[in-house]
Amino acid sequence: MVKEVISSKDNKQVKNYRKLNTRQGRKKSGLYLVEGVHLVEEALKSQIDIEIIIVTDGFKHGLYLSNQRTMFVTDEVMKSLSTLDTPPGIVAVLKESKATGLSYKRVLLLEDVQDPGNLGTLIRTADAFGFKTIILTPKAADPFNPKVLRAAQGSHFHLNIITREVSEAAMAFKGIKIGTALDNAVYIDSFQQPDDDIMLVLGNEGNGLSSEALELMDINAKIDMTGDSESLNVAIAGAILMHHFKS
Amino acid sequence: MVKEVISSKDNKQVKNYRKLNTRQGRKKSGLYLVEGVHLVEEALKSQIDIEIIIVTDGFKHGLYLSNQRTMFVTDEVMKSLSTLDTPPGIVAVLKESKATGLSYKRVLLLEDVQDPGNLGTLIRTADAFGFKTIILTPKAADPFNPKVLRAAQGSHFHLNIITREVSEAAMAFKGIKIGTALDNAVYIDSFQQPDDDIMLVLGNEGNGLSSEALELMDINAKIDMTGDSESLNVAIAGAILMHHFKS
Repeated sequence: MVKEVISSKDNKQVKNYRKLNTRQGRKKSGLYLVEGVHLVEEALKSQIDIEIIIVTDGFKHGLYLSNQRTMFVTDEVMKSLSTLDTPPGIVAVLKESKATGLSYKRVLLLEDVQDPGNLGTLIRTADAFGFKTIILTPKAADPFNPKVLRAAQGSHFHLNIITREVSEAAMAFKGIKIGTALDNAVYIDSFQQPDDDIMLVLGNEGNGLSSEALELMDINAKIDMTGDSESLNVAIAGAILMHHFKS
Repeated sequence: MVKEVISSKDNKQVKNYRKLNTRQGRKKSGLYLVEGVHLVEEALKSQIDIEIIIVTDGFKHGLYLSNQRTMFVTDEVMKSLSTLDTPPGIVAVLKESKATGLSYKRVLLLEDVQDPGNLGTLIRTADAFGFKTIILTPKAADPFNPKVLRAAQGSHFHLNIITREVSEAAMAFKGIKIGTALDNAVYIDSFQQPDDDIMLVLGNEGNGLSSEALELMDINAKIDMTGDSESLNVAIAGAILMHHFKS
């Protein structure tokens, strides 16, 4: 059997998959694209539905030799699919899975977090500390944006990531809702881990939590900064809090 | 007095300042450039030597009306000086200050940390938790790279940042040297804050600490990850450790 290698960027499938690098394209199709050996490997290890694996003709790696649907392309076609300066030899098209069996033991609620690097790092860190459900507001960055996927290093495949308004998410939650603010807040160092389920709520990079969100919290936590910096990056603050409240 | 507005990108001063966006240009001159109101404001509040403040003709803000040397430029010239997609109305050229009166109470040693975003975030977080001295290996990212400066949000101005090889830095340090590794390591949750001075040592994003560095450590610390992620981003791990060992 002769291996078919797609060499045209105008190939219909290639054109469709290239659209997955836009939010609109992902929304329309319910698919997203991950790049590089590590993410493809993590997808293969997980329960995620794989639509197709795309490799360059010269790519040497055992990964795609499983019974996955595979498409071979030229370096030039791969370059057109990749968002990286140095395109990888392998990408995979995955199906966005519907959230099932949501766990509410530890929930991370992110209000309008905008920076893809921050969002990806928060997803990776949530995965490390047992925050199995991540709720994003509609105005947050898209979790399937290539930069978010890269920073999260495959943690998407272990978590449920859903979209809700803060009010809806907070009002439906039965456990303790911990906001982050500097006023009327308790230092986490003097804050025992509660027995209840926990929803940790972080705000937007520039503005922090909205007053609407703060009103819905049971308590606010703050981090004791002993030095001269005025504030912490949201992913850093989130990590210190998730480590403190880990499940 | 008529205000002079420089309108040529080929102006000699403009050309010289533009070189500060390269490592080579910074090294040659001992100067670096920060962009935007926040960083210029932080520089003005600090003890940092300011070479010149550059503003666009139309920039409205009281900041530059102090007795700083100020240069007015057109939007186009500002665009040529800025590394941002949306150039700010103000930048400042600062002098790299020589480290003086190094504090060894809390030291952060970074071995070959490569990503400017990670390095900047680590600098900002060190500033928050009283790690006043940061030591970078010669192969680490340049701390005066524009992306590092942006992520650090002005924390450069509160800290001493120096360059040393790991071996030299570790051997000269009299307190306890805490490495980060998964083997032969103690969970920080069961690790009391020691009375000694602390040097926290973090490794490169891909490889972690070198075996040479690990041999010089007094103890290794690790973070208890209760979830499914295999690892943490270096800036996240560093933040959780610096928060735990804060001064």
